[in-house]
Amino acid sequence: MPRAVRERQMLDAAVRTFGQRGYRAASMDEIAELAGVSKPLVYLYLNSKEELFSACIRREAAALVAAVREGASGASGERGASGGVGASVPAADRQLWDGLRAFFTHTAERPDGWAVLHSQARTQGEPFAAEVAAMREEIVSFVTSLIAEAARSAHGDPSLPDREVAGLAQALVGAAESLAGWANVEGTVSAKEAAATLMNFAWAGLGGLMEGRRWVPSSPL
Amino acid sequence: MPRAVRERQMLDAAVRTFGQRGYRAASMDEIAELAGVSKPLVYLYLNSKEELFSACIRREAAALVAAVREGASGASGERGASGGVGASVPAADRQLWDGLRAFFTHTAERPDGWAVLHSQARTQGEPFAAEVAAMREEIVSFVTSLIAEAARSAHGDPSLPDREVAGLAQALVGAAESLAGWANVEGTVSAKEAAATLMNFAWAGLGGLMEGRRWVPSSPL
Repeated sequence: MPRAVRERQMLDAAVRTFGQRGYRAASMDEIAELAGVSKPLVYLYLNSKEELFSACIRREAAALVAAVREGASGASGERGASGGVGASVPAADRQLWDGLRAFFTHTAERPDGWAVLHSQARTQGEPFAAEVAAMREEIVSFVTSLIAEAARSAHGDPSLPDREVAGLAQALVGAAESLAGWANVEGTVSAKEAAATLMNFAWAGLGGLMEGRRWVPSSPL
Repeated sequence: MPRAVRERQMLDAAVRTFGQRGYRAASMDEIAELAGVSKPLVYLYLNSKEELFSACIRREAAALVAAVREGASGASGERGASGGVGASVPAADRQLWDGLRAFFTHTAERPDGWAVLHSQARTQGEPFAAEVAAMREEIVSFVTSLIAEAARSAHGDPSLPDREVAGLAQALVGAAESLAGWANVEGTVSAKEAAATLMNFAWAGLGGLMEGRRWVPSSPL
């Protein structure tokens, strides 16, 4: 069996074990058994529990970022793969919807991978926290650019301050993280439902901002 | 010095140390030194590092929940303390705004307490994770009731399904958690700014839902 295939089996087993039992509680014995290989082979390929965990984080983070980017670019949807200059770019709300649906579909299909990234990696100290923070940063800056783009096309000039756009992106990413965890625990909420709930929450709100409609309190702040 | 005062000093020192250095890296020596007491006295009062950490979680969770409830009830604001039947209840958007401002003010004033709850406690296994999950559950159900209330008063009858209301509450709480972490790291975002960003994000969106305005895609889903 080629090394790449064996390594993928080990990573699959490791993601499942780390995601379900937690980083500390997971044992290399259990991972080797689930992968159907000997423990020495796991060490030979992945070196240590720490490096195995890092490899899981990197793989799951790359897969999640790729799924969201691909979803938001419309690459998996109705648009062709032309992509060059002059290719039609979907409207910002459509990109956001496609990206959200891709995010919730991915985290529902890979709940253990999501648990590794969201619950385990962030809090096992370094270098794990930094790896997952880098992935989150990448998603936040992608969302930031989507929102800034939407603001530009709505206003002609960017009348939402950069700092507010950054805050909105943080809010949206946090909302998505929270809903993904909830949907995975709840078990009866489909990816499409979760995406629709967040889209209504976010877009009617973001959409209002784009049209210059801010929330106005009935009495002074 | 009364026991209660000493205990508060120990908890203050422990929250600061756990919040800044993490649960595992924090040492009882360091906590005792920061509290200005001997290590045996910390053990005498709080028993073990685990129990000290639990006491920190309980104190910080109770303080955060109380701050949000008090904020949202208008108790700290312009309303009197009458509160009985017939007392004016602020509109749902006002309650949400007051609650959000209280949340961001509290987490900005107690960044170490927030780090204990949000980053440390959730992922150090049981019984810590369960304690902080219970607090989060309490906040989510409070927000759920605010949203359901707003939907009822907007519609007469609740036309937002319970499940969607639950999802919206999860989204809002996740957005607030994310923004609080960001504002604390950023350091230049005031509590009021963070609250205003989220209020605009959430309310213009929630407000749209209340008025039956859903996001509508330009092409079929």
